[in-house]
Amino acid sequence: MEKDEKGITVKKEQDMPEWYGQAVFKGQLADYSPVRGTMIIRPYGYAIWQNIMDYFNGRLKELKVDNAYFPLFIPEKFFKKEAEHAKGFAPEVAWVENKDEGATERLAIRPTSETIMYDAYSRWIRSHRDLPLRINQWCNIVRWEVKDVKLFLRSREFLWQEGHCVYETEEECDKETMMYLDEYTKMIQDVLAIPLITGKKSDKEKFAGSKYTTTIEAFMPDGKFLQCGTSHNLGQGFAKAFGISYIGKDEKKHIPWQNSWGFTTRLVGALVMQHGDDKGLVLPPKIAPIQAVIVPILFEKTKEATLKETEKIKKALAGYRVHVDDRDEYSAGWKYHEWEMKGIPLRIEIGPKDIEKKQVVIVRRDTGQKEFVKADKVKETVKLLLEEIQNHLFDKAHEFMKRQIVETDNWDMLMKAIDARKIVFAPFCGKKDCEDLIKDKTKGANSRCFPFDQKNVDKNCVHCGKKASQYAYFGKNY
Amino acid sequence: MEKDEKGITVKKEQDMPEWYGQAVFKGQLADYSPVRGTMIIRPYGYAIWQNIMDYFNGRLKELKVDNAYFPLFIPEKFFKKEAEHAKGFAPEVAWVENKDEGATERLAIRPTSETIMYDAYSRWIRSHRDLPLRINQWCNIVRWEVKDVKLFLRSREFLWQEGHCVYETEEECDKETMMYLDEYTKMIQDVLAIPLITGKKSDKEKFAGSKYTTTIEAFMPDGKFLQCGTSHNLGQGFAKAFGISYIGKDEKKHIPWQNSWGFTTRLVGALVMQHGDDKGLVLPPKIAPIQAVIVPILFEKTKEATLKETEKIKKALAGYRVHVDDRDEYSAGWKYHEWEMKGIPLRIEIGPKDIEKKQVVIVRRDTGQKEFVKADKVKETVKLLLEEIQNHLFDKAHEFMKRQIVETDNWDMLMKAIDARKIVFAPFCGKKDCEDLIKDKTKGANSRCFPFDQKNVDKNCVHCGKKASQYAYFGKNY
Repeated sequence: MEKDEKGITVKKEQDMPEWYGQAVFKGQLADYSPVRGTMIIRPYGYAIWQNIMDYFNGRLKELKVDNAYFPLFIPEKFFKKEAEHAKGFAPEVAWVENKDEGATERLAIRPTSETIMYDAYSRWIRSHRDLPLRINQWCNIVRWEVKDVKLFLRSREFLWQEGHCVYETEEECDKETMMYLDEYTKMIQDVLAIPLITGKKSDKEKFAGSKYTTTIEAFMPDGKFLQCGTSHNLGQGFAKAFGISYIGKDEKKHIPWQNSWGFTTRLVGALVMQHGDDKGLVLPPKIAPIQAVIVPILFEKTKEATLKETEKIKKALAGYRVHVDDRDEYSAGWKYHEWEMKGIPLRIEIGPKDIEKKQVVIVRRDTGQKEFVKADKVKETVKLLLEEIQNHLFDKAHEFMKRQIVETDNWDMLMKAIDARKIVFAPFCGKKDCEDLIKDKTKGANSRCFPFDQKNVDKNCVHCGKKASQYAYFGKNY
Repeated sequence: MEKDEKGITVKKEQDMPEWYGQAVFKGQLADYSPVRGTMIIRPYGYAIWQNIMDYFNGRLKELKVDNAYFPLFIPEKFFKKEAEHAKGFAPEVAWVENKDEGATERLAIRPTSETIMYDAYSRWIRSHRDLPLRINQWCNIVRWEVKDVKLFLRSREFLWQEGHCVYETEEECDKETMMYLDEYTKMIQDVLAIPLITGKKSDKEKFAGSKYTTTIEAFMPDGKFLQCGTSHNLGQGFAKAFGISYIGKDEKKHIPWQNSWGFTTRLVGALVMQHGDDKGLVLPPKIAPIQAVIVPILFEKTKEATLKETEKIKKALAGYRVHVDDRDEYSAGWKYHEWEMKGIPLRIEIGPKDIEKKQVVIVRRDTGQKEFVKADKVKETVKLLLEEIQNHLFDKAHEFMKRQIVETDNWDMLMKAIDARKIVFAPFCGKKDCEDLIKDKTKGANSRCFPFDQKNVDKNCVHCGKKASQYAYFGKNY
């Protein structure tokens, strides 16, 4: 394979969509599938998702959330029980032909599992002793709407986790709705190195059937928001629709409060877009399936000694995710190129001259910086460099995001800023009608969230001029 | 809840199907679902499956098998590419209405993923350098045939792992087909404590489209086999059908060899049936989500001291999966009953009198045996007892299985043994026609496998009287 064919052929800044598709495909994270709207998650992409699952399963255990598994198929009548929910998901649902003799009801393939889970909850919950009930599931989800796949970002089928909890009181429900969002924020900022804007969704943008939705929003280098996860306080609506109740300590019957919360394989796409460069992927060390690749420089005469030293260095790095690329059939240059495209945080080169000098060469993927490191200092240097890369990726993205924010209460300024793909921070009335018009006039921008830490608003809505309820962030989104 | 309502109301020996359903349901491993043919895996059941996944993912890493994820939907035309395969799965396939405008082709929900995966393999494999390719996926599978659910044993949707590998040579393919079966055997015997009979399937029973199928078969206490996993050498048929080829070291084009192998959530059902007793589940320590439950005996005056001692014992057991049941609202007796039903290997009771005597009471779930253990010997005693329980469960099941084997070449003896729900070991011609008749005459028994370690066969087939090819095990099955 020629280098030209192998490498990414466009610059990220010039054509982000094309760059993104190539970075994911050539980095072997995912592949297109012959089934319209679907994608294949290749081993390298799945390893990132597995790392995300492992991290989050550890957190779930701490938070006393149990994993379970509910059916893929949902009876049509379940959807209809909560009116807003049914309306919200109707266009997205894929239906299965019911092959049972005499069957009249279609089965939906889950676009989300509230209804099938809460039907079970209505049987499982009897007493206050059964609460709080905290259940999560990792599963596949189907939403038909998508026609053209954007790998990881939009596809008819994707993987996710969905948490569904039930509480005695509104207060508890509010508190934990926020707690799960905080967990997401921690994971995505600290592990994936993606800075976030967090807040509440407007009525127009909230989850169908919820009381309110909280969200974490990343801002991509091409000036579009990417929603990375949401947590919904569902109020008591689903509980009423599905007949969930409990006998309290007062021996009376009560309706409980519920929340649900989820993130998807889209996070892998966010990683790529946020950190990648013209050479391909750049993965933050904490999530990278391989944190350092060792490339021994092999010549016939010195091969044995070089491989021996490589093995020594690999052993010194026990505890890190290290891969040795000792393939014979590829040149060192070819290998560098491949591992750069795959975004490995550190490359360690070991050649005969390095061995003479008792050193190795370490190259950072994020900055391209190269340093000579004494062989007995490799472990501490790798530790330090991985931390530096992790922090550098976050800081760089964070600086960028902050620079893009334009605060204004002037409509023309908003229009200009949206055209320039900036983040607009503006007073907003929060009304659905007003937001519909904003989306229309800006050709696609909407409110991304009302941040939690609100200033006192004594301004008028940036669009309709009526009294603003809160400040909101606006922008276009994926 | 009253004890009678809570406990299992039938004896395992008297009505195994009813006992099994109650053990799974009341042990809260799974629940029935309002969607015909499907089930819900509850947190306790999922925790067992998670332990199986964690164990096996560790093995996959060692064996250099990568996890990936392929689409749920499979185009109808893919199925038709391999004729035997299409024929084998046709009645089981659930179809999705294709909502795309002008779409004429139905989409199958995967009943197994050979076709969708091998279509991708045909694009990914170019050179001998791409081989061996070893990929596994954990996913949900739908097979419509099932009408009445048997929790974990038969349901329209289930979870599984499916491994799909590609090799340069037949020899390598044979070797690894056997290697994966050996991995299954090791896991199921050593971790789940279920003894197995292993061997090759007859032509009638092999996987649709395979060259041959190897299998691991457990034998349940009610005299029926339960297939616990299979590994198929697929030969070159799928490679030819899907256009998979590679350029060898000789620079010529070759057709590779393939295998596939899988086990399902049915293993959780096997665990229950194999080891459970009239009080409910009995879980082998290596797979139990909770290995020991500590029940402090709480009285008002001594509560604080008892909880303090409980915490100390829990700390001493760091590294084991220990749960403390300090709920106020239930009596100690109620708790014992509950944890017995859930099959926790060890119960540790700590009361004020025990504290005085510097001891705890430890009760084994498998034998009911009770012993007083000095507080400073708890850790070593728990270690020993867990090992003993693990071995005892395997040995007991193994002894039972061995006792059930009847070796004969006489048809009447076979009929009698099958009626008595024994395992028949008999010379067999291996022909499909003959096996059809055997199944018919015995009302459901078939050959379970030809064991790998064959004696020289100089006998005639137990049924047709023609020259036998090998000895086979016969029995009815789940």
